Amino acid sequence: MIKVVIAGFLGKMGQAALNMVQNEAEFELVGLIDPFAKDKELQGVPVYNDKSALLDVSADVWIDFTVPEVAYENTKFALENGFSPVVGTTGFTQEVIIELKQIAKSKKLGGLIAPNFAIGAVLMMQFAKKAAEYLPDVEIIELHHDQKVDAPSGTALKTAEMIAEVRQKKLQGAVNEIELIDGARGANYDGLRIHSVRLPGLVAHQEVLFGAKGEGLTIRHDSYDRSSFMSGVNHAIKQVVLLDGLVYGLENLL
Amino acid sequence: MIKVVIAGFLGKMGQAALNMVQNEAEFELVGLIDPFAKDKELQGVPVYNDKSALLDVSADVWIDFTVPEVAYENTKFALENGFSPVVGTTGFTQEVIIELKQIAKSKKLGGLIAPNFAIGAVLMMQFAKKAAEYLPDVEIIELHHDQKVDAPSGTALKTAEMIAEVRQKKLQGAVNEIELIDGARGANYDGLRIHSVRLPGLVAHQEVLFGAKGEGLTIRHDSYDRSSFMSGVNHAIKQVVLLDGLVYGLENLL
Amino acid sequence: MIKVVIAGFLGKMGQAALNMVQNEAEFELVGLIDPFAKDKELQGVPVYNDKSALLDVSADVWIDFTVPEVAYENTKFALENGFSPVVGTTGFTQEVIIELKQIAKSKKLGGLIAPNFAIGAVLMMQFAKKAAEYLPDVEIIELHHDQKVDAPSGTALKTAEMIAEVRQKKLQGAVNEIELIDGARGANYDGLRIHSVRLPGLVAHQEVLFGAKGEGLTIRHDSYDRSSFMSGVNHAIKQVVLLDGLVYGLENLL
Amino acid sequence: MIKVVIAGFLGKMGQAALNMVQNEAEFELVGLIDPFAKDKELQGVPVYNDKSALLDVSADVWIDFTVPEVAYENTKFALENGFSPVVGTTGFTQEVIIELKQIAKSKKLGGLIAPNFAIGAVLMMQFAKKAAEYLPDVEIIELHHDQKVDAPSGTALKTAEMIAEVRQKKLQGAVNEIELIDGARGANYDGLRIHSVRLPGLVAHQEVLFGAKGEGLTIRHDSYDRSSFMSGVNHAIKQVVLLDGLVYGLENLL
Repeated sequence: MIKVVIAGFLGKMGQAALNMVQNEAEFELVGLIDPFAKDKELQGVPVYNDKSALLDVSADVWIDFTVPEVAYENTKFALENGFSPVVGTTGFTQEVIIELKQIAKSKKLGGLIAPNFAIGAVLMMQFAKKAAEYLPDVEIIELHHDQKVDAPSGTALKTAEMIAEVRQKKLQGAVNEIELIDGARGANYDGLRIHSVRLPGLVAHQEVLFGAKGEGLTIRHDSYDRSSFMSGVNHAIKQVVLLDGLVYGLENLL
Repeated sequence: MIKVVIAGFLGKMGQAALNMVQNEAEFELVGLIDPFAKDKELQGVPVYNDKSALLDVSADVWIDFTVPEVAYENTKFALENGFSPVVGTTGFTQEVIIELKQIAKSKKLGGLIAPNFAIGAVLMMQFAKKAAEYLPDVEIIELHHDQKVDAPSGTALKTAEMIAEVRQKKLQGAVNEIELIDGARGANYDGLRIHSVRLPGLVAHQEVLFGAKGEGLTIRHDSYDRSSFMSGVNHAIKQVVLLDGLVYGLENLL
Repeated sequence: MIKVVIAGFLGKMGQAALNMVQNEAEFELVGLIDPFAKDKELQGVPVYNDKSALLDVSADVWIDFTVPEVAYENTKFALENGFSPVVGTTGFTQEVIIELKQIAKSKKLGGLIAPNFAIGAVLMMQFAKKAAEYLPDVEIIELHHDQKVDAPSGTALKTAEMIAEVRQKKLQGAVNEIELIDGARGANYDGLRIHSVRLPGLVAHQEVLFGAKGEGLTIRHDSYDRSSFMSGVNHAIKQVVLLDGLVYGLENLL
Repeated sequence: MIKVVIAGFLGKMGQAALNMVQNEAEFELVGLIDPFAKDKELQGVPVYNDKSALLDVSADVWIDFTVPEVAYENTKFALENGFSPVVGTTGFTQEVIIELKQIAKSKKLGGLIAPNFAIGAVLMMQFAKKAAEYLPDVEIIELHHDQKVDAPSGTALKTAEMIAEVRQKKLQGAVNEIELIDGARGANYDGLRIHSVRLPGLVAHQEVLFGAKGEGLTIRHDSYDRSSFMSGVNHAIKQVVLLDGLVYGLENLL
């Protein structure tokens, strides 16, 4: 049994984490923290408003879905007091990550800070990068709800960036290609094309399409709601207790 | 049994038609014409170099996959001599089509001239037009091999045109939408977006995606090779013998 | 402006309907009914606990998302008092539908009772039926969350039934087909195969795949949440005010 | 420039290999072998009927698409005379592979024997195995033309086997799942379900679908024709010249 505490358990992500931990046989919830909590316990689990109360609690993993302003202090506190942090809060600078890695190393504690916990999305990007080594012709179609402002999406740009690191440089399409209407061939990222679809009903989806003579390979990720992050948090909890250092990015635990 | 002759049977489309007719229990092949034919018969079926020889042949349907220069004369000849024409050759002017319709009417003969015989593609366009009446948010993704010069494809433009006839006018996407890279949101056709993917390995594919609150409807057509036209030719042969007029466009027989 | 009342507005579907009506420029909400309502008004709209209070309210359309026990009485009340009903509650018998149709006819009022308001799903079934007339080789893949008990889904069976009405009878697949593991080829419905996928994360999805020589046609519907019914309710409201009879099934308004 | 000879160049695969080599700037074709060849040269490249003639030819790589009866002798000959073999002929026993590996090792020559050269298919299987470590809920849909006899396909079974090696054992679907029609839930392979679709028009396609809370990951491979093997042969040629041993299976070069 891995003993777990959750900081920021009243937020949307915190609630999703709470639900996941309660439903996993290998995890035992031993403490909850949130400055806005009014009750002193939740189904037998002690609830605290301040992290200092955790000094008396024995736990293996500190899940953190708080806000950027407190996440650094929380993570530092966790490491200094023997908890392996699994942190989904964003806003960590490069400098701060280095400092936290050093603390983790000196304490021989595992830990993870990750901007994206959707295992499926992280695997999609890894697979796309791997495939691009052998199949240099690739296009990305990302599909989101029609209230999304930016196109392409951050995930599409990140995927294109990872592909560009390994693939043989090339401008795709026929050499004498003509756009009868501007934009038909999508956004040009280093010769690779990205297409952004926006429709009501959609949530967050992406397809990476590779083509070669006589064959095609497609990798697609569908994200339906924020619970999609919880497979990744679950996996991270089980991994950080085996590590003796802190890593940045879920891909380093896959 | 429907008795069939094929004009232009030595061309690629003609060969595909020959193969289809030979494998359909309800059709009987009674004659073949091609100016380049050298043999006088093919598996017991008489082969001619000139249409005049057909004056002595009794048949119900005249399949024509010749070249634009002779297709008009052929179709006229067929109608005047009692054959129902099923014509896949392109290049007919509006004027000529009207003339041929009049001959068919006076002879009480059915007939079809069609630029596209792929039933699946024609159905995709019909369904897309129908769906757009109720689901006005739509985007088109067309995917072709990477030697295709034009983008968007003719089929995508034709589909967008058919949709535009019925859908409530609207510019899709968020009002404050931003393209971080030009072209990400595709080609704008009357507020509807078209995306053109070009990859080796692909043949000719199209997806029409509709979105509404909480749901999506997608209609996809895949064309793998020219044999895709033969379901349509088969259907047309069975239909024209029941008609007493000539129509233009396979959609009029569906 | 179409004046609308909503019966059963506190239920999940009623809330979705409320939200939709409030966001549609052509609709004006003039009354809300729910036996469990505690407040007397909601954002300026009067709230009632009993339908009798509606006798004094002038409205065009009566949306009903109540429970089977009261839906019949509600629909009858609506028709007798000049409201066009749009009813999503299930459980109407054939007998009762006939009675309600007669009242609607005598009152010259339009109305709709529908078990499924997802326009996309209804269109998918209609298109599948149409395509099966020309493309008799078809398989259905339906995909749902892994807590669904029945396989195939009701929608898949309904689709197969509609296809069976029109398609040329045939047993699909190779004549000497062998299942190396039982069930590989799916459920056999009149020669057509249905495959049921169950995975966590999925909601409710269906693909109808047609194949013919050299081509394929696929019709896919994705349902992400119950708001998917609201495009259909919206459409129905606009249609029933133009009708002078009551119909059963959204397909009759498409 | 890598100098290449092709054995069995008159067969279908040999012709595809010939075409690929002629169109790759980094390869130089220096010899062709086929017992059925009648001409002594092809576009300036010498053509031989017997491998013994190759003793005088200096080349880096020996591509072999012959028949099982001669492939072993050919591969042994290649290794003993300084050519790195890239062999797509099937039928090698475990014993023979070990012997050929030993010869390669003693000669410090790279080489590859592979039953499947479609890079996309090999990547699909590798990615599926990797994803199954983190996402244990998975189903496979394989789609082939309707003349295929066996279901599931060999590739689907191979994929399921690779997944079973790593995934947490589990029976998928609801515990009280009911098949209203036998076979709806597909073939059960170690708790994982496989669905086999057979339709005219299809070639060879496979989707591996993973589901987890709130998300889905799909890996799809489409094979349109035998030219799909040529990306893999191309890659193998470039890799074997860098190796000093022979490997079995393209996955070992990815």
